[in-house]
Amino acid sequence: MAVIGFLGLGNMGVPMVNNLYKNGHLVKVFDLLPAAIAKLERLPVTKSASAMDAVANVDFVISMLPSGAAVEDLYLGGSALLSHISPKTLVIDCSTISAESAKLVAAKAAEKKIAMIDAPVSGGIAGAEKGSLTFIVGGEQADMEKARPILMSMGQFVMHAGDHGAGQVAKICNNMLLAVHMIGSAEALQLGVDHGLDPKVLSNIMLRSSGKNWSLETYNPYPGVMPDVPAGKDYQGGFMSKLMDKDLNLAMDAALATESTTPMGALARSLYGLHCKDGNAELDFSSIQKRFKK
Amino acid sequence: MAVIGFLGLGNMGVPMVNNLYKNGHLVKVFDLLPAAIAKLERLPVTKSASAMDAVANVDFVISMLPSGAAVEDLYLGGSALLSHISPKTLVIDCSTISAESAKLVAAKAAEKKIAMIDAPVSGGIAGAEKGSLTFIVGGEQADMEKARPILMSMGQFVMHAGDHGAGQVAKICNNMLLAVHMIGSAEALQLGVDHGLDPKVLSNIMLRSSGKNWSLETYNPYPGVMPDVPAGKDYQGGFMSKLMDKDLNLAMDAALATESTTPMGALARSLYGLHCKDGNAELDFSSIQKRFKK
Amino acid sequence: MAVIGFLGLGNMGVPMVNNLYKNGHLVKVFDLLPAAIAKLERLPVTKSASAMDAVANVDFVISMLPSGAAVEDLYLGGSALLSHISPKTLVIDCSTISAESAKLVAAKAAEKKIAMIDAPVSGGIAGAEKGSLTFIVGGEQADMEKARPILMSMGQFVMHAGDHGAGQVAKICNNMLLAVHMIGSAEALQLGVDHGLDPKVLSNIMLRSSGKNWSLETYNPYPGVMPDVPAGKDYQGGFMSKLMDKDLNLAMDAALATESTTPMGALARSLYGLHCKDGNAELDFSSIQKRFKK
Amino acid sequence: MAVIGFLGLGNMGVPMVNNLYKNGHLVKVFDLLPAAIAKLERLPVTKSASAMDAVANVDFVISMLPSGAAVEDLYLGGSALLSHISPKTLVIDCSTISAESAKLVAAKAAEKKIAMIDAPVSGGIAGAEKGSLTFIVGGEQADMEKARPILMSMGQFVMHAGDHGAGQVAKICNNMLLAVHMIGSAEALQLGVDHGLDPKVLSNIMLRSSGKNWSLETYNPYPGVMPDVPAGKDYQGGFMSKLMDKDLNLAMDAALATESTTPMGALARSLYGLHCKDGNAELDFSSIQKRFKK
Repeated sequence: MAVIGFLGLGNMGVPMVNNLYKNGHLVKVFDLLPAAIAKLERLPVTKSASAMDAVANVDFVISMLPSGAAVEDLYLGGSALLSHISPKTLVIDCSTISAESAKLVAAKAAEKKIAMIDAPVSGGIAGAEKGSLTFIVGGEQADMEKARPILMSMGQFVMHAGDHGAGQVAKICNNMLLAVHMIGSAEALQLGVDHGLDPKVLSNIMLRSSGKNWSLETYNPYPGVMPDVPAGKDYQGGFMSKLMDKDLNLAMDAALATESTTPMGALARSLYGLHCKDGNAELDFSSIQKRFKK
Repeated sequence: MAVIGFLGLGNMGVPMVNNLYKNGHLVKVFDLLPAAIAKLERLPVTKSASAMDAVANVDFVISMLPSGAAVEDLYLGGSALLSHISPKTLVIDCSTISAESAKLVAAKAAEKKIAMIDAPVSGGIAGAEKGSLTFIVGGEQADMEKARPILMSMGQFVMHAGDHGAGQVAKICNNMLLAVHMIGSAEALQLGVDHGLDPKVLSNIMLRSSGKNWSLETYNPYPGVMPDVPAGKDYQGGFMSKLMDKDLNLAMDAALATESTTPMGALARSLYGLHCKDGNAELDFSSIQKRFKK
Repeated sequence: MAVIGFLGLGNMGVPMVNNLYKNGHLVKVFDLLPAAIAKLERLPVTKSASAMDAVANVDFVISMLPSGAAVEDLYLGGSALLSHISPKTLVIDCSTISAESAKLVAAKAAEKKIAMIDAPVSGGIAGAEKGSLTFIVGGEQADMEKARPILMSMGQFVMHAGDHGAGQVAKICNNMLLAVHMIGSAEALQLGVDHGLDPKVLSNIMLRSSGKNWSLETYNPYPGVMPDVPAGKDYQGGFMSKLMDKDLNLAMDAALATESTTPMGALARSLYGLHCKDGNAELDFSSIQKRFKK
Repeated sequence: MAVIGFLGLGNMGVPMVNNLYKNGHLVKVFDLLPAAIAKLERLPVTKSASAMDAVANVDFVISMLPSGAAVEDLYLGGSALLSHISPKTLVIDCSTISAESAKLVAAKAAEKKIAMIDAPVSGGIAGAEKGSLTFIVGGEQADMEKARPILMSMGQFVMHAGDHGAGQVAKICNNMLLAVHMIGSAEALQLGVDHGLDPKVLSNIMLRSSGKNWSLETYNPYPGVMPDVPAGKDYQGGFMSKLMDKDLNLAMDAALATESTTPMGALARSLYGLHCKDGNAELDFSSIQKRFKK
């Protein structure tokens, strides 16, 4: 059992705290929004009055925030949270942010002798709820091993990507590739349907052939092909298009930083940008299928 | 045991004939190029003097040609080959051609009471050699079942896509999607490497996450990540870029025919077109990785 | 004064006939739709009962139809119209169709000793009404010169592009480029506006710099920058997005025919395809600006 | 006559200094590289020993540097150059950098009561040499008017884009659009040539039609169409592809900052990135034409 300070109670944070509690950890939670904390009302976790309270005397601090600006503000901003964290505490940031932000905060933590890892997740809200998240970790391997039992309380895989920031890089490379094959799958399915093929039959064929990919296998974007995926529920739930859009923006930022060329990634970013501007920001990202319909 | 007339002895045709022979079938072969026939010199198959000879008194005719023009010329051209095929013979065209060509030839065959299916393959030269091809079939299901034992002599899967031409449509949908995730995988790997990640580590992470796809799983384009793939042999062997380019042209033709929108597929077509024009036409299609290198 | 048979009374055909009449020519018109002919009720031109009637005993036949299929059907279809046209008559097809269709029909006409030119137009409905069209001509230069006075009755420029079909190729090259700089202009204007710039100021700057192009100069897509353009009238009137979409499809067909690589053109085709599927097919093509709005 | 401190003696800076001198101004120059200063050996301008010397007691400071990092380092870095500039001096930064950098430096200057404008240029080395540059200005209009006579010594147009940073935004919007129509023109020309058209004839047709744009009009990328452009000199001279690549990276940075969607701009960035990685970074940007050749 560990004592954990958990910061950030959004759609991901709440089920993650739930799983930490279920696995016997003592959790102290905080969020800037009282309404967010209220979502945990019935769960016997400590509702801290401030971030500072939540991080006092804990074994681990976990943060799950929506942006690099929020992470920088939390740890480096006015409240100087790092000054309130003991060097014995391991800080785990699970937010998806830029590698630059991750490196910056880890470096500032290091100045105060605080160990920190970046551990963004793959798996979405469903994965957070089922406790089947994948954590992609940047930082010292030894720190990752120390964090592993805690992370395994919330997920299934913990993988080391490299140094500080590498978890973030691997995460956005993955999500850029995901966006590319999701759109590619949607186009291929529609092209087949436009030629009279049954999308189920075509999906099965491509899954047994070289077109196979995660989008097609577990998250088919064409309505009616798979049960229990967002495509079957008017694209409600799942991983919102605006979050994919955010990750693609991070990917493009990363590509600019190293002058990497990513034509498919850039086109995916454009298409999700247009999709969101068109009123689909809250729909699951597989709703890109709708664009190709006649 | 069946008697089979096999037309077209290219890189795919030769190993396919080999596997038919190994599985006990009697094969009569023909190719317009004597040099192609010479490749089968040592194999005790009948070298026919003409396509007409090869298709006389056989249970099945199989054709494996490089283009729709070649297929139309063979069956509908000057030699009027269809007039030399018995209605008892089932014609199996394994070439990758446009759905329009496939439908046209099948319709002309039907006028002469000859049953025909389109059965383009997935799996490449390696699949042809190992006898592990996937056949994607368009035409009557009963005809496919009749052809199944023959096809299973050369492959592992036989899947029904729909009516005449549907095999072709499914094949090019699949290959368009393959091109999309191959390029996407190459971009993602290079983006990670540019940020200091190890391509093996990043590949493993994405294979256990939502970026997973066939290119990454069985055909990693980054040199040094997987043994025994073209990326490890200077992109020699495998599925040539010019063949992917051809399939993408077929996909774009299909998209124009139905006014389908395929932004990712169109970009993939442009990138493979540029890649081939740049002198890489003979390299394996995973060589697209080279373009992204710094 | 010439005697002219005019076939095809759509949005372009009607004002073209008007200008022919105004310039003193004797015009015999026909359209498959009686309603189309009715639009010319008050104009003292001969309403023929059939295409055959319209082309009998004329100096020139002019056709202005919506597609290659329509042109092939008119000249080569069941009514065998070419058999009803005298070798003394010069046939001018002003439709925008594929080069292949244009060549085919011209070749069939040549078999009957009938001279034909392809003369697609640039300038849209406004140009047809003002008599300021540009004709881009493929075929014999001598035939173009013979046609010139007639074409100048409807336009301002007559330019020779090359052999039969070359008029069509030049037209679609031009329109592909137009689509590219229209979208590019829309993106650049929105990017500036998103950063707080005044779209008028930015337009002026780019018009005096290297970003200058026809879209920006005469057809600014950002509402409020120029008076009397579709952007100022909710994108009503002008050149409909679906017509641009059609021309981009022709451009892609042409690119496939010669295995030319056109990444920008292909992306433009995708974006106009999505735009039309999204309910904007009837709006002027500068309405692509709307997609980029926040 | 004014006294001017000029910092940055690259390919642009040297001819700009030349023109300032020719127009009777007293110029004090500095560059971090002695070799750069040496290029002005024969010109009777003052070679300062440091940036601080160059900016002492002058009416204007002009900087022309290769990147935002260089500009920030110059004005805000270790030497604290702003502390050595009198509030009576007007600072004109002609570098092409991000709007963020431009705003930051201007704000820091304002803290020291120093007026500053951003005035990036359009026109390239040729424009710098001929004194025909266009200056696109961000900052106070009054400051621009004060700078106008100096700028007109080096150019032909001075245009106000808006507030601090707006000059940079307008410049990169323009250059993004330029890249888009340059590539579009190259594609259209090659598509025509692939269909047998003469590139001169096609260029003339498009220049009189709606495809018209600056690239086609003054900088035709197809070899042999225009004299005295880089296309006629193996793409030597002119505006290097790597500089276009840099500007497109700035455009993408700007698009990410405001979450603007620029599909054409993003594709242009990818294509120039690939072009540069392929060994063409030093060639004029119209060399993108080469990629489309068969």
